[in-house]
Amino acid sequence: MGVIVVGSVALDSVKTPFGEVTDALGGSATFFSVAASYFTDVAIVAVVGDDFPGEHVEFMRARGIDTSGLYTEAGRTFRWAGAYGYDLNDRDTIETRLNVFEKFRPRIPENLARVEYVFLANIDPELQLLVLDQVEGPELVACDTMNFWIERKRKELLDTISKVDVMIMNDAECRELAGEPNLIRASRKVLQMGPDTVIVKKGEHGALMLQGDSFFSAPAFPCESVYDPTGAGDAFAGGLMGHLAKTGDTSDANIRRAVIYGTVMASFCVEQFSVKGMASLSPGDIENRFRQLAELSHFET
Amino acid sequence: MGVIVVGSVALDSVKTPFGEVTDALGGSATFFSVAASYFTDVAIVAVVGDDFPGEHVEFMRARGIDTSGLYTEAGRTFRWAGAYGYDLNDRDTIETRLNVFEKFRPRIPENLARVEYVFLANIDPELQLLVLDQVEGPELVACDTMNFWIERKRKELLDTISKVDVMIMNDAECRELAGEPNLIRASRKVLQMGPDTVIVKKGEHGALMLQGDSFFSAPAFPCESVYDPTGAGDAFAGGLMGHLAKTGDTSDANIRRAVIYGTVMASFCVEQFSVKGMASLSPGDIENRFRQLAELSHFET
Repeated sequence: MGVIVVGSVALDSVKTPFGEVTDALGGSATFFSVAASYFTDVAIVAVVGDDFPGEHVEFMRARGIDTSGLYTEAGRTFRWAGAYGYDLNDRDTIETRLNVFEKFRPRIPENLARVEYVFLANIDPELQLLVLDQVEGPELVACDTMNFWIERKRKELLDTISKVDVMIMNDAECRELAGEPNLIRASRKVLQMGPDTVIVKKGEHGALMLQGDSFFSAPAFPCESVYDPTGAGDAFAGGLMGHLAKTGDTSDANIRRAVIYGTVMASFCVEQFSVKGMASLSPGDIENRFRQLAELSHFET
Repeated sequence: MGVIVVGSVALDSVKTPFGEVTDALGGSATFFSVAASYFTDVAIVAVVGDDFPGEHVEFMRARGIDTSGLYTEAGRTFRWAGAYGYDLNDRDTIETRLNVFEKFRPRIPENLARVEYVFLANIDPELQLLVLDQVEGPELVACDTMNFWIERKRKELLDTISKVDVMIMNDAECRELAGEPNLIRASRKVLQMGPDTVIVKKGEHGALMLQGDSFFSAPAFPCESVYDPTGAGDAFAGGLMGHLAKTGDTSDANIRRAVIYGTVMASFCVEQFSVKGMASLSPGDIENRFRQLAELSHFET
């Protein structure tokens, strides 16, 4: 068992009302892989520039992340700069410099082509399709996307969505992709685009999951100290896919539990800048929040 | 056992992308009492003008609602006109004509002064305090409010809040009252203002409840056909208070169930204009949605 993620590794400069960081370790594949590393073997496929600090690679390896698919190209690493106001739900992107990521063509190392769980993080859907061509009969493929691709590469995105098992997106993206303001109807429309499962991330409001006629509403963890929401969605996907890969069980009941593990990892992620909130957790830390989520959503019938 | 509500009875003109109604039965006390009538004895204290259609009073009585505190004054009934766009979360108030409601001074009929459950719907906090002076040792008092009073009568509102057991408000109001964007911290601040319980309504995202250190996250019912959200918050409060009054049990476990019954009644409310969605439900309709909410929020630990 194991999971592979294809996405970005970046250096993020983030400013929130609680502080700021410059060139901190970020990127969708980073947040995903760190979260997943608490559950299963995880391998990363991404590209960095020759300016990428070696300490970040060492940190990933120390977390057990397979970096054989982390390619270094001449040039600068992908950089993103963003700022959040007091309402941390609203993010302003200040700058996006793709740098070496602009020419990224994912190559799956041969020894990873048969990995059973695949996560296509938010990248160009043409690249997501390229990854699907290189993996051999995975057990489960999940995919994320964003408004940029919904608006500019809709055809390629729909092609990708029709080929994946689990579509993970946030609520605004789900409404935009479906062209439908009612989130339940929007999720149902995305389900009709091909995947077996649609998972909608709603930030502080938790997550929804639709599978055929089965509907699951997951609570958010009640975080009182949200320092930086960057990466929360990828940490969520990492916990979710990590749990699925660890257990090898894709039943409805187990995907529900996986959504809760995703929620737990996202909650640790937002409590500190970069990946610091997920850098050194114990199994007990994770199980404790899982149990709290069960308790806080329980009522007797 | 029984519940009394003090609030507005109005004639609403509402336009949504799905249709419109003119001078339809509305008002906070109306939505509350119709919802509560499925659970317990409910009495209404409000004022209407001499233009108020007798059929509406007959409808309330047919639902078992005690209208002995529904006073008729010379003049026109309170009228509200609003419109919703495709995103039904955003509402535009087109017109508010208080009419006879402008001089409303709530008088609790003598036979109702000892009622055990009291709901102070969204009215001037000075009037809410006037009601508290007239009721004799109620078991539980719950209260709603809105941004208008938070901004213009903060002192009186804080006085009211310090005297009630359960504060019910929506998420934007909770953040505004507490001056805190993080909803969990904001709820905790409202709890420190005096009530034992704070319940935050989040519309399509469900509800949160905080009691001491106990935290409950309730799912929303996944409504695919939302026609008119008007009154949903009062229907929620009606189901909640109705269940508490019916059972006479204010334990944490039972307030959780009450929040779910509130969610059920709100879900019926939004499916049609005015009170039509709650006009003729069977006990089975209500229990069925209660069970669905249990199922859709359940995961195995």
